[in-house]
Amino acid sequence: MLAEILTIGDELLTGNTVDSNSAYIAQKLTEKGYWVKRKTTVGDDVEEIKTVVREILDRKPEILIISGGLGPTHDDVTMLAIAEALNLELELNENALKRIEEFYKDLYKKGLIDDPTLNEARKKMAYLPKGAELLENTVGAAPGAYIKLENTKIFVLPGMPREMKAMLENEVLPRIGEKKFIQKKLLAEITDESKLAPILSETLQRFNVKIHSSPKGFGKYIGVIIFGENEETIEKAKKFMEEKGIQFEEGW
Amino acid sequence: MLAEILTIGDELLTGNTVDSNSAYIAQKLTEKGYWVKRKTTVGDDVEEIKTVVREILDRKPEILIISGGLGPTHDDVTMLAIAEALNLELELNENALKRIEEFYKDLYKKGLIDDPTLNEARKKMAYLPKGAELLENTVGAAPGAYIKLENTKIFVLPGMPREMKAMLENEVLPRIGEKKFIQKKLLAEITDESKLAPILSETLQRFNVKIHSSPKGFGKYIGVIIFGENEETIEKAKKFMEEKGIQFEEGW
Repeated sequence: MLAEILTIGDELLTGNTVDSNSAYIAQKLTEKGYWVKRKTTVGDDVEEIKTVVREILDRKPEILIISGGLGPTHDDVTMLAIAEALNLELELNENALKRIEEFYKDLYKKGLIDDPTLNEARKKMAYLPKGAELLENTVGAAPGAYIKLENTKIFVLPGMPREMKAMLENEVLPRIGEKKFIQKKLLAEITDESKLAPILSETLQRFNVKIHSSPKGFGKYIGVIIFGENEETIEKAKKFMEEKGIQFEEGW
Repeated sequence: MLAEILTIGDELLTGNTVDSNSAYIAQKLTEKGYWVKRKTTVGDDVEEIKTVVREILDRKPEILIISGGLGPTHDDVTMLAIAEALNLELELNENALKRIEEFYKDLYKKGLIDDPTLNEARKKMAYLPKGAELLENTVGAAPGAYIKLENTKIFVLPGMPREMKAMLENEVLPRIGEKKFIQKKLLAEITDESKLAPILSETLQRFNVKIHSSPKGFGKYIGVIIFGENEETIEKAKKFMEEKGIQFEEGW
């Protein structure tokens, strides 16, 4: 159940934009039972994207979610780079073209743009890697793509958070199966994290759980997240820690 | 002038925390003239960290900044993993030990913790890879490390944003040289991004600049960032674009 996330955009590498997309995607994948092993961010550069996509596929994650670089400008090169990484051709998707045309006509009617013409820049967004399934963008122009390889399901989503979230919800999550892994966030009332360490270690040895802890300020609380395959396992681990003297509250 | 950033922490891979650290670091590196080529995030896992550190070093960036996993708990394994990746031993740094001891004594005096003892978990933070230079943590317990390899300067910083920022400012930036690259953020008054595309392409061909554009909403503005080695080059590129009919305003 391993997954990886790749976010693409020069603005993420200059620090002009904080990559909240990958956290959002990670959260949804975690809820679905996937373990996100790695997140990577590269710029809007064909060679760089090709390289990193191939590296990720070599690690054979079950899911790869890619976000960013699907727009109409010179630096939106994600679909091209993915096609090249997979040795696929880019192919005009007539369905996508029709939707893009409708999208701009609609914006024109609303008085939001001056010109509804399907120019080259807009048309570019209708090209998907050959064999890819179109993922609908219900709130923007650029469609996404779903490519199923032998080992990996690849989903290519836009970078605009509103568009990415809608596509993730409507098009991606239904394709990746049922919820399998759950997490419980707790606050441990303990004065410092180093006291918690030996208890956590013992819990990890005894139960089939993963635990993350992070300080929430000295003299107050330590945030603890217990991950497990079901409520029961998590409750057992929690109870064991309580017996060792840790007092928990729910929530962060 | 290539740089890479590696952030470490399970909380980043479960989406419980948005990785604002890497954006902050990226921004500071960009201001210093570095081109951040890639950002990677992995969990608190020795093997995973080792693997990715070796991969990054193979790409020979001039700077590698690593953040996260320096605390006292079981899942803080960054220093150990880096030492293993570089085939170095972990060595108790007496200076670090003294500072950590003082840090907890001070918290104890302030009534923030119950026990000032230097237990094993706290002592763990005083171990640095052999030969590493200590980076002072002025606001927390865990010291950072600076390791100079033949090709790459590696800086290891805490993950708590307040501690990371202070260490970056006081200990890292003075070690990586003068400002060399600048960026100008502008707003282009143009109704949609696809109109801008051919003008951007022509500008990129003519001038030694990089340009990033991102829509700021339909019918309003498109954000444009021009990167160049000096004001003059940026101004020339900007002027060229204005002659092609783009009207700019400053700021986002």
